[in-house]
Amino acid sequence: MTSSRRKFLTNSALVTAGFTLTPGSSFASSKAEKSTKNDLYLIGPKDGYTPEIGTLLSTMTMMRHWVINTVKDLTMEQLDYQIDDQSNSIGAMLLHLAATERYYQLNTFDEMEWGSWSDEIKKEWDVPMSMGQEGRKKIKGNTIDFYLSKLEEVRDKTHQELARRDDAWLEKVEPFFQNKPTNNYCKWFHVCEHESNHRGQMKFIIKRLPSA
Amino acid sequence: MTSSRRKFLTNSALVTAGFTLTPGSSFASSKAEKSTKNDLYLIGPKDGYTPEIGTLLSTMTMMRHWVINTVKDLTMEQLDYQIDDQSNSIGAMLLHLAATERYYQLNTFDEMEWGSWSDEIKKEWDVPMSMGQEGRKKIKGNTIDFYLSKLEEVRDKTHQELARRDDAWLEKVEPFFQNKPTNNYCKWFHVCEHESNHRGQMKFIIKRLPSA
Repeated sequence: MTSSRRKFLTNSALVTAGFTLTPGSSFASSKAEKSTKNDLYLIGPKDGYTPEIGTLLSTMTMMRHWVINTVKDLTMEQLDYQIDDQSNSIGAMLLHLAATERYYQLNTFDEMEWGSWSDEIKKEWDVPMSMGQEGRKKIKGNTIDFYLSKLEEVRDKTHQELARRDDAWLEKVEPFFQNKPTNNYCKWFHVCEHESNHRGQMKFIIKRLPSA
Repeated sequence: MTSSRRKFLTNSALVTAGFTLTPGSSFASSKAEKSTKNDLYLIGPKDGYTPEIGTLLSTMTMMRHWVINTVKDLTMEQLDYQIDDQSNSIGAMLLHLAATERYYQLNTFDEMEWGSWSDEIKKEWDVPMSMGQEGRKKIKGNTIDFYLSKLEEVRDKTHQELARRDDAWLEKVEPFFQNKPTNNYCKWFHVCEHESNHRGQMKFIIKRLPSA
């Protein structure tokens, strides 16, 4: 493959990945740099985890890297921007991703029924989990570091907990989505694709920022 | 777990899955019904595929089911609706998902360099792949059946091709995203999360349809 063809390949592929639509694709910030190790795009087993858990985690790591890359250079004003009265800011969506992961930790690691968590947990996470009116009032005025730290803090716990479990744990089933049998692999796949769902919305908003 | 608690659990979980934000959550249409079999939320090996390929495919099947459920009841006018001058319609995004999957088939199954496909292929798929100005002009006036058929036609081929391959094929690597080593598992995970990315945008638009 010639160098120019390879460049074409990479650029075209990056269009589908949405990199060209996002600011700061230079991966300059140290936060984003942390996860640019050379196996980022090698989905599969990872050291320190059982094979299936490592594979699942590698999809989550790649997804998170793309989320961070999409938002890492946004200002406080951009993170707070609402495209209309019913929209969620990018900041609120980032905290919502952390909240979602926290609640799935409680449900799958601590085996708690959905919503049965303590008042202390609810006080911290119910607003970003629901976003909406309350979220629009309360989640604002934070820099990107605040959101990235929250995401990292929750993800660190996910790493620790996943390292303690084995592939059989991924197969544990309860009625969940649509009240159908749902295994832990499915719940964590949802945590992962849910980041992509909101990243799509973040990119939509970034293209329409007043400063864009 | 009492019935009311289970109901709460399911409803809350469906909020994070975005079901409550989408029309037609009754799963009434026969198209959506097709994939509501009881293992939809059991991510893992599937009959007819090697274990890792089956696991990957089960995430793609779940994701596709959620995409279909989000759009299956939209009218032609809703599918053509553009929220602003630079936005892509939901119809264009659905054809874009089919185009993306078609191009990753050529790249991974046929081992073609990205963009090296025939003019015939480009003529069919380049416009939905790029969307934008051209897509806004050319992708309109179709019912949901047109888009779902295209998606199904391309997915059928994915099923056939994946059934012929084994887990070692998933590990095949070339420089791809950011010119870093990227395996086939990663490319197909991207095809999957890319559907969630656009589903997030579709839900954003659906909430803002003039008829909503």
